[in-house]
Amino acid sequence: MIAVMPSDDLARHLDFLREIDRLKSVQRRTALVDRSRLENSAEHSWHAAVAALVLAGQAPAGIDIAHVVRILLVHDLVEVDAGDTFAYDPAAQHDKAARERAAADRLFGLLPAGPGAHVRAWWEEFEAGQTREAMMANALDRFAGLLQNWGGGDGGTWRHHGVTREMVMARMEPIRTGLPALWDTVVAIVDEATAAGHLQVEG
Amino acid sequence: MIAVMPSDDLARHLDFLREIDRLKSVQRRTALVDRSRLENSAEHSWHAAVAALVLAGQAPAGIDIAHVVRILLVHDLVEVDAGDTFAYDPAAQHDKAARERAAADRLFGLLPAGPGAHVRAWWEEFEAGQTREAMMANALDRFAGLLQNWGGGDGGTWRHHGVTREMVMARMEPIRTGLPALWDTVVAIVDEATAAGHLQVEG
Repeated sequence: MIAVMPSDDLARHLDFLREIDRLKSVQRRTALVDRSRLENSAEHSWHAAVAALVLAGQAPAGIDIAHVVRILLVHDLVEVDAGDTFAYDPAAQHDKAARERAAADRLFGLLPAGPGAHVRAWWEEFEAGQTREAMMANALDRFAGLLQNWGGGDGGTWRHHGVTREMVMARMEPIRTGLPALWDTVVAIVDEATAAGHLQVEG
Repeated sequence: MIAVMPSDDLARHLDFLREIDRLKSVQRRTALVDRSRLENSAEHSWHAAVAALVLAGQAPAGIDIAHVVRILLVHDLVEVDAGDTFAYDPAAQHDKAARERAAADRLFGLLPAGPGAHVRAWWEEFEAGQTREAMMANALDRFAGLLQNWGGGDGGTWRHHGVTREMVMARMEPIRTGLPALWDTVVAIVDEATAAGHLQVEG
């Protein structure tokens, strides 16, 4: 179908860029703030990366924000093959790692070796969550979901799935260490959502 | 509706992040590669930023890729108020600058002064197109549209709007200086699209 092959190296970049267009069709369980539809993983990645830029002043001292942005831009790419796994579905979480690793092999392998290795390293850094930049990226990824569900004032998709206050607090835990300046805000939002009846309370 | 006000500074960040969620609802005239729907400006910004990361090795020497990424992440934010202006509609281009400046005043003014000034500076740098980073960002913004229209193999929205080869070549011109390593590819893609009848030829 597509015959243009400017150079093998550039052609592989174009294959990759065309392939990852599919992330725009991977639906998450969170809705847009205006609730017109569910959001997709591509626009979510954009929003989290912008959040990293504007919240740079809230980050722990010495963090490389540009690297946090890089990590966030590629953190969901494997969903092109593996799909989005609902955070509050233990069964789907079970084989998530294996599905995503196979996706990484195929997808990052489309790129030439150099850029392919970079993208893979950033994704693996996010998954491992050990560096301070990966911890902040994980915090912002979690915070994005909180912001979407809370931002519309109606509890968003939490209510449809019977999500509890305890489940949300456990999911938000990476923010405590990854972006501690936001932690009081997280607790305040969860308290407000609980008081409004948007989150159930266990026991 | 939303009572959580952790600190004035953080509250302003949250207002901004909630407001820019609307970029996910701003439609462009380009379709996804699989043609299932038109793409929106948020996911377009993500795709262009990822392109900057993976095409870093094709960039002119010494360019700050992290800065190109920053610029691309915020380059369309003003469309939250001003909407997307179709590249090939001269009438709509006429008052584009005034509409976008008013949008910038309101939108970037939601943020505290420090981050607000940063985001505004990055957007103005993109619009002015004078730095090498802004020139590469402009090149990738233009290339993204080419990739979407060409990538599906059917000419995409070019055909619906009677876009000519000359119009596309004029629109791609920033790539010649902003990301010259891609220029031969641009010409090859446009040639192929013309030969396939997806682009009209003037005169």
